[in-house]
Amino acid sequence: MRAKVHVFLKPGVLDVQGKAVEAALHGLGWGHVEGVRVGKTIEFDLKGKDAAETESEVKDMCEKLLANTVIESYRVEVA
Amino acid sequence: MRAKVHVFLKPGVLDVQGKAVEAALHGLGWGHVEGVRVGKTIEFDLKGKDAAETESEVKDMCEKLLANTVIESYRVEVA
Repeated sequence: MRAKVHVFLKPGVLDVQGKAVEAALHGLGWGHVEGVRVGKTIEFDLKGKDAAETESEVKDMCEKLLANTVIESYRVEVA
Repeated sequence: MRAKVHVFLKPGVLDVQGKAVEAALHGLGWGHVEGVRVGKTIEFDLKGKDAAETESEVKDMCEKLLANTVIESYRVEVA
């Protein structure tokens, strides 16, 4: 099965990378861009029987390694 | 309109961050995980009239700033 994990900073946590991208876009003439947030996407294959079981396993990976749950939230897609 | 840009290393380009995540997952007992790729997701709001026009504008941003098209590919979603 193929898993996709999207990791984003929680709302309210200052996203410095997003701010930098926003400033750069403004500088290039796209002044109407706002609210830029930069996140991570982690994709991988894993052996699993059913989607529900695999999803709970991937969530476990997020809690332990892939996301810093103090400041980041995550979303898991299994297909 | 809300735009989402997914940026990934092209196939064949060594993804060191992905390799590091894979090794860490193996070390934590998830040895059946393989093919880990780590990418970026950039989300932002922008003023635009129709989806097609906005999408072509966002692709322009990718070419100029958001992706290094020598080694990275991107996918744009506008909603």
